[in-house]
Amino acid sequence: MTSTVPNLCTAPVGPVLKLEAKLLERQADIETWFRRQWLETPAPFYASVDLRNAGFKLAPVDTNLFPAGFNNLNPDFDPLCIHALQSAIERICPTAAGILVVPENHTRNRFYLESLAALVDLIAKAGFHVRIGSTMPDLEQDQIIDDLESGRTLRLEPLRRSGDEVYVGEGEDRFSPCAVVLNNDLSGGRPAILEAIRQPVTPPAILGWSNRLKSDHFGLYQQVAAEFAELIGIDSWLVDPLFRNCGKINFMKREGEECLVSNVEMLLEDITAKYSVYGIEEEPFVIVKAEAGTYGMGVMTVKSTDDVLSLNRNARKKMASAKDGREVSGAIIQEGVYTFETWNDPADSAEPVIYMIDHYVVGGFYRVHDGRGRNENLNAPGARFQMLAFSESCTRPDPSRDPDAQPNKFYAYGVVARLALLAAAREIARAHQGD
Amino acid sequence: MTSTVPNLCTAPVGPVLKLEAKLLERQADIETWFRRQWLETPAPFYASVDLRNAGFKLAPVDTNLFPAGFNNLNPDFDPLCIHALQSAIERICPTAAGILVVPENHTRNRFYLESLAALVDLIAKAGFHVRIGSTMPDLEQDQIIDDLESGRTLRLEPLRRSGDEVYVGEGEDRFSPCAVVLNNDLSGGRPAILEAIRQPVTPPAILGWSNRLKSDHFGLYQQVAAEFAELIGIDSWLVDPLFRNCGKINFMKREGEECLVSNVEMLLEDITAKYSVYGIEEEPFVIVKAEAGTYGMGVMTVKSTDDVLSLNRNARKKMASAKDGREVSGAIIQEGVYTFETWNDPADSAEPVIYMIDHYVVGGFYRVHDGRGRNENLNAPGARFQMLAFSESCTRPDPSRDPDAQPNKFYAYGVVARLALLAAAREIARAHQGD
Repeated sequence: MTSTVPNLCTAPVGPVLKLEAKLLERQADIETWFRRQWLETPAPFYASVDLRNAGFKLAPVDTNLFPAGFNNLNPDFDPLCIHALQSAIERICPTAAGILVVPENHTRNRFYLESLAALVDLIAKAGFHVRIGSTMPDLEQDQIIDDLESGRTLRLEPLRRSGDEVYVGEGEDRFSPCAVVLNNDLSGGRPAILEAIRQPVTPPAILGWSNRLKSDHFGLYQQVAAEFAELIGIDSWLVDPLFRNCGKINFMKREGEECLVSNVEMLLEDITAKYSVYGIEEEPFVIVKAEAGTYGMGVMTVKSTDDVLSLNRNARKKMASAKDGREVSGAIIQEGVYTFETWNDPADSAEPVIYMIDHYVVGGFYRVHDGRGRNENLNAPGARFQMLAFSESCTRPDPSRDPDAQPNKFYAYGVVARLALLAAAREIARAHQGD
Repeated sequence: MTSTVPNLCTAPVGPVLKLEAKLLERQADIETWFRRQWLETPAPFYASVDLRNAGFKLAPVDTNLFPAGFNNLNPDFDPLCIHALQSAIERICPTAAGILVVPENHTRNRFYLESLAALVDLIAKAGFHVRIGSTMPDLEQDQIIDDLESGRTLRLEPLRRSGDEVYVGEGEDRFSPCAVVLNNDLSGGRPAILEAIRQPVTPPAILGWSNRLKSDHFGLYQQVAAEFAELIGIDSWLVDPLFRNCGKINFMKREGEECLVSNVEMLLEDITAKYSVYGIEEEPFVIVKAEAGTYGMGVMTVKSTDDVLSLNRNARKKMASAKDGREVSGAIIQEGVYTFETWNDPADSAEPVIYMIDHYVVGGFYRVHDGRGRNENLNAPGARFQMLAFSESCTRPDPSRDPDAQPNKFYAYGVVARLALLAAAREIARAHQGD
């Protein structure tokens, strides 16, 4: 591998090695269990999962059903993405070749555009005709973006609709796809043009942030983690962050503050109890974040109820704003999971981000933040990121080596990330039932 | 990538670049066509295909349904094999985890044992319990092989049967697999212990060399190549070696010699006609080989009918012997395809061998032979081989580069190898109908 191998160290604290050893030992049973789960509940088209590895605990803290960051994956593993895309798309379009990607509308974010270009490139290499249909309201004609650092070129075409079909291009150049791959998390709402079309939309628009709640996901994750913990005989807390939620919060008007304070208090007590069972001497903390949303806005680290009560006006304003200017109306209070993974010297905090396509783990990277501590959200704007492609995929454990050896740690990451993927699959199944 | 990148040169002779350019240009249509084909006719569990790249022509010359050589694949691509194995096995064993591999019986071939160990290792890493059930007649108890160069350990267990079920181990250790993966080409006949068992055997025993004929395979390949050639608008000869066959040949007794001579003559005429159409100035040649068999025995390069008539006693004896001592009873006379790929200076002949699991290309290597010319069979014993793992998979073409750039050449290899895979899939489907 030509890529830099990240110099990451995990504090070898008690139970985590036990957990990793357990996952390795039970690998065949775990994989059989997953196969059964995917038969019952097909995996989402793709997803990325943010993990936190606290040494004593390894848990997902965010599951993104419309992932960006494909440009940060190790290009040596493109063949894995290509296989997985073929497998995912051949289920939707067994005999057709046209895929339309509907991207985010923020065309000035170079990082996102690089990710979009990488995704489109992978779909083309998997053997599909692929074009980009944009829902940007002011896009009248094709927009060519040819100044990306990667040298890739993007053509954004206005998404059009005729009857129950979406397409791009006109006349001889008209392109009616077999399926629409959504790469827009719909924070700004579900676009009418995608409603009730004959082409399948994957992942379904109903899973966009305009409908989805983090607490729904983590409620389903709790069930998945409990079933999995029973399978391998562990305390599900070792892979599951505790959480509570408040339905109506208005930070600016200080509405719902009592709910928040009492839930923070109860959650801190629950974490303290767990820490005492496992002899963990760290200070418990919780993360308060918007129920709907992404891009790390409206995320706050809280160590006591005082932290909530003493929020100043600026902090309130920050909590109240989420992506696309939506007001935060619900909040999830999630157990904070320390990250004990660091990069560099002096140490910067690092957290693994795992990518999956269909039910396959296809790679990942470390998100490194040199301005944030090990108990803070690292998916934050305004500070330098360092993306480190994994030099190994997460599918090749080596039982002959130490459980904390890199391929084995990556296997553990792949297992926990797929538990979150399974929770997302159940979210989709439930949404379809309610549809 | 850490592996050596082979220093291979392909003579850039006329049509081949055109063919590679055509394959790249029509990639999405080709992949769509393949998807349709796999829906109609599921791919074999695995296969390896020997290709010959003559510069003006790229064609398969041998398709092995029970491949060895897994130890020669680039370990960087293990994740690809793991994905593909998961995809292949989850169709056979969606809810179970036990796989039994039935290997060849020649336990003194270290190369084969390394391949077997690599295959078993991959199946385990794909998340299955895997054990080896041997049909060696004199194996009374487990045989441990722990002196392999790779450091891997193999346990060969006697294959047992109870009612319609095969298993290994006894008592608490009894292991009843969900499926049997056959890695024995059955040159010595179909073992009775595998007949009419309830567990699926894949690839099916009926595709072993005790039943299979090379001319059946290449007959089906001819149809596949014709359909494919029509799809992309080329002369199917560019991917298809001409062939003829003789049903009854006994080299020692000189029976069937007339059939051989007349077919060699007609085939040489056909090749000469094609060479003249394409302005190729090489001397046409044909390969005569056993209808059933592998391991490169009984393979002869023939440039004129005199070559057949003047065979001396030793050469006859060699042609008459195939693996496991079976007498050659039929022969296929196949258009010889020059290999223009060379390695080293002075140049040794090289030919690509492509591996597939399910319908996925998972890698390959170059077979290099320093004692053989570019018009000879390179799968020959008695001389040094050099296996060169591909440093790139065959699934990642790059249309922005020259058609002969390595990833693009590998894509072309992957397409032609899959054409042979499809012919093998049709062989299996036909065998099942006749079963």
